[in-house]
Amino acid sequence: MTTTPNPLSRVRRRWLLTGGALAAGGTAIGVGTAFGGRTDAGTEPSTADLGAAVVPFHGPHQAGIVTEPQAHAVLLAFDLRPGTDRAALGRMMRLLTDDAARLTTGRAALADTEPELATHPARLTVTFGFGPDLFAAAGRDRDRPASVEPLPAFGIDRLQARWSGGDLLIQVCADDPLTIAHAQRMLVKDTRTFATTRWVQRGFRRAAGVGRTGATQRNIMGQLDGTVQPAAAYHDRAVWISDGPGWLHGGSTLVVRRIRAELETWDAVDRVGKEFAVGRRLDTGAPLTGAAEHDPVDLTATDSLGLPVISEFAHVRRAHTPDETLRILRRPYNYDDGVHPDGTPDAGLIFASFQADIARQFIPVQRALAEVDLLNEWTTPVGSAVFAIPPGCGPDGWIGETLLA
Amino acid sequence: MTTTPNPLSRVRRRWLLTGGALAAGGTAIGVGTAFGGRTDAGTEPSTADLGAAVVPFHGPHQAGIVTEPQAHAVLLAFDLRPGTDRAALGRMMRLLTDDAARLTTGRAALADTEPELATHPARLTVTFGFGPDLFAAAGRDRDRPASVEPLPAFGIDRLQARWSGGDLLIQVCADDPLTIAHAQRMLVKDTRTFATTRWVQRGFRRAAGVGRTGATQRNIMGQLDGTVQPAAAYHDRAVWISDGPGWLHGGSTLVVRRIRAELETWDAVDRVGKEFAVGRRLDTGAPLTGAAEHDPVDLTATDSLGLPVISEFAHVRRAHTPDETLRILRRPYNYDDGVHPDGTPDAGLIFASFQADIARQFIPVQRALAEVDLLNEWTTPVGSAVFAIPPGCGPDGWIGETLLA
Ligand code: HEM
Ligand code: HEM
Repeated sequence: MTTTPNPLSRVRRRWLLTGGALAAGGTAIGVGTAFGGRTDAGTEPSTADLGAAVVPFHGPHQAGIVTEPQAHAVLLAFDLRPGTDRAALGRMMRLLTDDAARLTTGRAALADTEPELATHPARLTVTFGFGPDLFAAAGRDRDRPASVEPLPAFGIDRLQARWSGGDLLIQVCADDPLTIAHAQRMLVKDTRTFATTRWVQRGFRRAAGVGRTGATQRNIMGQLDGTVQPAAAYHDRAVWISDGPGWLHGGSTLVVRRIRAELETWDAVDRVGKEFAVGRRLDTGAPLTGAAEHDPVDLTATDSLGLPVISEFAHVRRAHTPDETLRILRRPYNYDDGVHPDGTPDAGLIFASFQADIARQFIPVQRALAEVDLLNEWTTPVGSAVFAIPPGCGPDGWIGETLLA
Repeated sequence: MTTTPNPLSRVRRRWLLTGGALAAGGTAIGVGTAFGGRTDAGTEPSTADLGAAVVPFHGPHQAGIVTEPQAHAVLLAFDLRPGTDRAALGRMMRLLTDDAARLTTGRAALADTEPELATHPARLTVTFGFGPDLFAAAGRDRDRPASVEPLPAFGIDRLQARWSGGDLLIQVCADDPLTIAHAQRMLVKDTRTFATTRWVQRGFRRAAGVGRTGATQRNIMGQLDGTVQPAAAYHDRAVWISDGPGWLHGGSTLVVRRIRAELETWDAVDRVGKEFAVGRRLDTGAPLTGAAEHDPVDLTATDSLGLPVISEFAHVRRAHTPDETLRILRRPYNYDDGVHPDGTPDAGLIFASFQADIARQFIPVQRALAEVDLLNEWTTPVGSAVFAIPPGCGPDGWIGETLLA
């Protein structure tokens, strides 16, 4: 198959003219595609029709990474079927790229069975990742970044195989849940010859249009989550890869940790205890040493007894990376998958972080947290997976071509 | 406990002054609370902050029934613990009513452990229902409407116990998924002394602000679903109960059917076949005998061969109830609960319908569909439950008091 069928070319010309922001049959609304704390809170999406907003699919980097997080996400991991080699992977990624390019602009997929469900992109992004074993299947194991391999075991882990690993990742995000359901279905169909579905994790944040745009959101534990991130000015070093295997330049890596929130015991703790565990206030998100959310955290401040105000074991101290070029970009979603008969919830975080280098950026933080972090009392990692995130592609290319072509 | 603690009285005075629409600490936005086809498409919610929109909780009828459907819903069913008698049920319903009255106006529940998550009601509604066995537990079986009992078995049913039955129903709907998760958690907590969780079903429609407000939405099978409903002028007879047991006047009944969509085979059918099965076009939703969605369905029209244009076995013919006072009010949500390893989806409809009388209104339609309906080929009921929906209450009352006080 070719990746440039004729019906696309008119659209592609338009794409070039408009800089990538268009919605077929709808109003094109360019939407900010960078987040990273207050320095860069994202552009206010028009509320005229949230469904018409488009995040450009094509570009040097994949979308869905520094894109201001959409309200809904589904993360899907697949196992390659035996015999899926480089050529087969290339065919699959051409198909999936074509689906993504169409769906993210509000057009039906080529073999779309419900084309009417494709008309509201609602900032849809589709992001692809390659798991550790895909490289050997493609005969390209020497092109695998060394740290794209299962994370070392941490003492806090209670990992379940059903939430871990995977050869191929597809992250689908949008501000509309029906758009996600449809895109998911079209994409999964085009993987079926090549792969089986390993796990599916659905997550959510606040709906688009609820609360102040660009404000830090609360997670399901009630905390303001996402205050300290690498600023956009550092994304080129913190998020995007520029050394190592050439095929990955402009790409990134993704760590997905499914972390159960032990809400039963968390709810039994008073506010002082909850705030002490993190080192920040629950109401404003301010550090215990400051007054406003974005005040700097003073790790040296002591109280009248000479004890540190922010505990040695507080989450923000243990997780802090002073060098912004080494910070991870966190892009977590909440999950809430029901209630056990006794009323205890099955809820938590789909913790997702993008970083240029897992070994240099993610692992030191995760190790520091696993050693001691007061928050560990109420959070349990139950799933773990890592992926290389290929760079983006232009209208005539496909995601993964730098590795698989 | 009392249902009129002091801190509420100021709010209650405000409620009386504003007619019920207020959001504590936010902007009060009254929102249309009636839907029922084009005659009554619902008020356009302000897009300033979708999170601030409030649907009044108090009133003669419960909210969440003729309320224009919100984007997200969770339906929870509970089994009463042995020994939960009328007095205990009264205590439980007082607690739950108080939670609902607070949360739906953007205020924390009394024992809220994450009060910061309560601030964006986003049109939150909480609707309570009583299952068949609750009445005997309350010593009130003679007050149970006769048709609030498990539905007769239908040939199409493949019911699973895990999606069926229940003594208490809580339907939580809002335009924001985090608001739902928080409300669900607070409500479940207050049931735990009295009941265990039997099933939880999460559903979605289009996000608020996506597409045209009040337009009929598509379901996960791609169809416009919700065109023909009882008009608002008929709700008093079609939806609300005004005869039978007096405690239920102003109330309703709810049937919940979890219906799996066989998307694999559905997607294999061409458009002509899909449209023939329903009797309406996929693109516009127009009947096969008309040009626009709301054109009347002409069941007598024949084609050049003398065959009916709308098949004898088409869904809209089989389901049609000419008398609007006998129509059911459908309020369905989509579900999408993941993907089997082979790529087949677990998706479908949480079909929910409200009607004054299950025996007179719902069962005849369900029986006609179960006998023959072309759509049955691609839809499988896997869950079923029925509930009496008590009337609403004023600021000093509680849901269920007319039965349990
Ligand atoms: C359920 C699990 C977790 C919860 C509830 C949680 C919550 C939080 C909260 C409330 C903050 C403070 C506000 C902010 O800056 O965003 C924070 C900061 C942070 N967390 Fe977590 N977190 C979790 C897991 C993790 C994991 C697994 C990692 C990485 C391995 C991580 C890395 C960070 C980092 C780097 C910061 C910023 C620290 C700073 O420089 O101030 N967190 N987290
Ligand atoms: C997955 C299952 C179902 C699907 C996909 C479905 C889909 C549809 C569609 C596309 C329409 C036409 C548009 C409209 O008026 O809304 C419709 C109409 C209707 N459906 Fe269903 N339906 C399902 C199950 C049911 C069930 C279980 C009932 C009741 C027992 C029911 C009752 C009705 C009624 C009363 C109408 C309006 C008919 C008329 O008067 O024109 N449906 N449905």
